[in-house]
Amino acid sequence: MTEKTGPLSDRSRIRRAPARADYDRSTLNAIVDAAYICHLAFADQRGTHCIPTACWREGDYLYIHGSNGSQLLKAAAEGAQVCITVTHLDGLVLARSAFSHSMNFRSAVIYGVCEAVEGEHKAESLDALVEKIAPGRSREARRGNAQEMAATTVLRVLMNEFSCKIRTGGPKDADADLDLPIWAGVLPITSAPLPPVPEDACRVAPPYVTEWR
Amino acid sequence: MTEKTGPLSDRSRIRRAPARADYDRSTLNAIVDAAYICHLAFADQRGTHCIPTACWREGDYLYIHGSNGSQLLKAAAEGAQVCITVTHLDGLVLARSAFSHSMNFRSAVIYGVCEAVEGEHKAESLDALVEKIAPGRSREARRGNAQEMAATTVLRVLMNEFSCKIRTGGPKDADADLDLPIWAGVLPITSAPLPPVPEDACRVAPPYVTEWR
Repeated sequence: MTEKTGPLSDRSRIRRAPARADYDRSTLNAIVDAAYICHLAFADQRGTHCIPTACWREGDYLYIHGSNGSQLLKAAAEGAQVCITVTHLDGLVLARSAFSHSMNFRSAVIYGVCEAVEGEHKAESLDALVEKIAPGRSREARRGNAQEMAATTVLRVLMNEFSCKIRTGGPKDADADLDLPIWAGVLPITSAPLPPVPEDACRVAPPYVTEWR
Repeated sequence: MTEKTGPLSDRSRIRRAPARADYDRSTLNAIVDAAYICHLAFADQRGTHCIPTACWREGDYLYIHGSNGSQLLKAAAEGAQVCITVTHLDGLVLARSAFSHSMNFRSAVIYGVCEAVEGEHKAESLDALVEKIAPGRSREARRGNAQEMAATTVLRVLMNEFSCKIRTGGPKDADADLDLPIWAGVLPITSAPLPPVPEDACRVAPPYVTEWR
């Protein structure tokens, strides 16, 4: 039985609606694993920035990657403190009062500093990204050659200072509003696959394509 | 015919894959209007933060709101420079080479400073949020009373310094990879509604509920 954990730092403590806070690593991992992208915030001499980028996880690390020329990766690689946030919107919560309208969501906010991933582990970590997107594909796609690997930066952040926040369920109206003659409930939203769009010459589809629906 | 516009500032100029950059306001508006949430980054004495929050648009302004007690809104209301990013993931792009894998997406990155929305326009702007979530509902739900309005902060950012980035279409493999015997194409993703979940007592559903599918 795991002990309920708390925030590592003051800045990662959730103050608003603290009952929705969750500091368990299993919750964090599930939120990160369900996401293809994160939003990465950092500050440099030009200001504060917030950039979407692909993400994946290995153990307690969150990984990002990109071109060596990326401003984002340059700043992050130089040791700037970053805040990486992953959010899933699960529904619109329609309450009887406008004030009590809400959203169902799962989010993770991670504070840390990036470190560069180099050598053999760099290639392995990019394989892991391909595997996340399409299980089995890292053995099928042409692997990056020396030039491509050299042009790519891979960074990772140790996920120790984090908080998750989750809202589920229906509206929480005040008792005085419960009898108002208005529909109340949840309009759920999900991230859904649409039919694959193959390139012209591609006839035989692997399982991660045929099962994409 | 509108003239093709460019970035307002150096920090809002897209350097990576500039052919995917778009600085047109109509593109920005479409990306913001299609989103229920944004990610807001700001820096304070505790570091750089990245927080998901509901967003909506009126004219050239992006709006956010929340409890007066929110750290996010306190920092933003104090005039910190913010960066607000809206991202829609549209698909996973599977190329023949691992290096050329990509994602289809629409994103908008907006730099600015928040200003507080007060008085009559504050109530009107919250109506606009309810209308975005469910057209017609601002005339049905109980509107916020004085106490609820006083407990709520509404902020807006003039969207002048922004960039949009859009990727569509299939993989862009190098010519030398086109004959590799591997499936290539796009696995599209969309944000999709699931069946509404009414509260027990709610029998008659308005159009924005019955049409939610």
